[in-house]
Amino acid sequence: MNTYGEKTGRLIEEFGRLPGIGGKSAQRLAFYIISQKPERAEALANAILEARRGVTYCSVCQTMAESDPCAVCGNVNRDPSAIMVVEDPRDMAAYERTNEYNGLYHVLHGAISPMNGIGPNDLRLRELLDRLRGGMVNEVILATNPNVEGEATALYIAKILKPLEIKTTRIAHGVPVGGDLEFVDQVTLARALEGRREI
Amino acid sequence: MNTYGEKTGRLIEEFGRLPGIGGKSAQRLAFYIISQKPERAEALANAILEARRGVTYCSVCQTMAESDPCAVCGNVNRDPSAIMVVEDPRDMAAYERTNEYNGLYHVLHGAISPMNGIGPNDLRLRELLDRLRGGMVNEVILATNPNVEGEATALYIAKILKPLEIKTTRIAHGVPVGGDLEFVDQVTLARALEGRREI
Repeated sequence: MNTYGEKTGRLIEEFGRLPGIGGKSAQRLAFYIISQKPERAEALANAILEARRGVTYCSVCQTMAESDPCAVCGNVNRDPSAIMVVEDPRDMAAYERTNEYNGLYHVLHGAISPMNGIGPNDLRLRELLDRLRGGMVNEVILATNPNVEGEATALYIAKILKPLEIKTTRIAHGVPVGGDLEFVDQVTLARALEGRREI
Repeated sequence: MNTYGEKTGRLIEEFGRLPGIGGKSAQRLAFYIISQKPERAEALANAILEARRGVTYCSVCQTMAESDPCAVCGNVNRDPSAIMVVEDPRDMAAYERTNEYNGLYHVLHGAISPMNGIGPNDLRLRELLDRLRGGMVNEVILATNPNVEGEATALYIAKILKPLEIKTTRIAHGVPVGGDLEFVDQVTLARALEGRREI
């Protein structure tokens, strides 16, 4: 990186550490920052610092939030009898945008993935079990991702919840709305057939 | 963005303003920053601020540099009789990495692109002409990108340099080394044939 100066090199290096940003993208971003007005660089730097300092974990659902409890857990109009288990705060945000769910959430911060060395103890499962012990919860909806890791995590959670005798459900698999059957993979097509319902 | 808190939303917005970073990537980056140790966020923020404050333009070749003149222009071992004209500091860095060129550079900061409203006056051409007036330069090597804008810019510069009677050359077009002829586009193949040399 010493083709560029020390400061530019360091910025490229820092950008390159972000997920999904390769060497070329890091260079492009660094030169963009340098070519912008100083206010723009300061706005980005401040946003980074403030978000890092101001955002913490909700002690109830474990999502990233700026208040504890988070806006969802602190909302008395939400139904505390249902908990949707998701892998990531972004998944929670995705379900919030649907405006179709009024229960609470629980964010695992990951999924079981032996390939990446992530086991059940690396997820926020103890916190989930603590919440369920209160006896207020009638249903746990497993909304982990529809991939190998997400399915394994859902099965694992279903297994450990069995003794608690709480209704445990999994979100439906099927063809996405607005999709074209022709382009849907075989496994999804098979799952959609398997999950067919009378209309 | 109010699905997330205000600070997270602002960070996502700031990331989303960077070139090549879409909404999803901005979310991913923001959550990555928040989930990291505070030192990592501070390192990135500081690198942004320091690079923006510490990097300026070289008054000779117009590249972005941390000193004026830049390391290349200030190097007495470089051959001042050749100037390679490039669009961008990254192109200059790419040629520097080859270790095959010992002359100086001139960075235009763009290329003529009527579609994007960029005309000759938006490039650092006046600075190039000022440098050529010194009479020290024997050759101007046009190394703008091998695309429509770069070719137009090279032709334009060749035209305005004509009255100065300085040798003006263009880097060769041809098949890339290590490439596979089968996958090279027709225009490049035609140019490679046209530019063939005896061996």
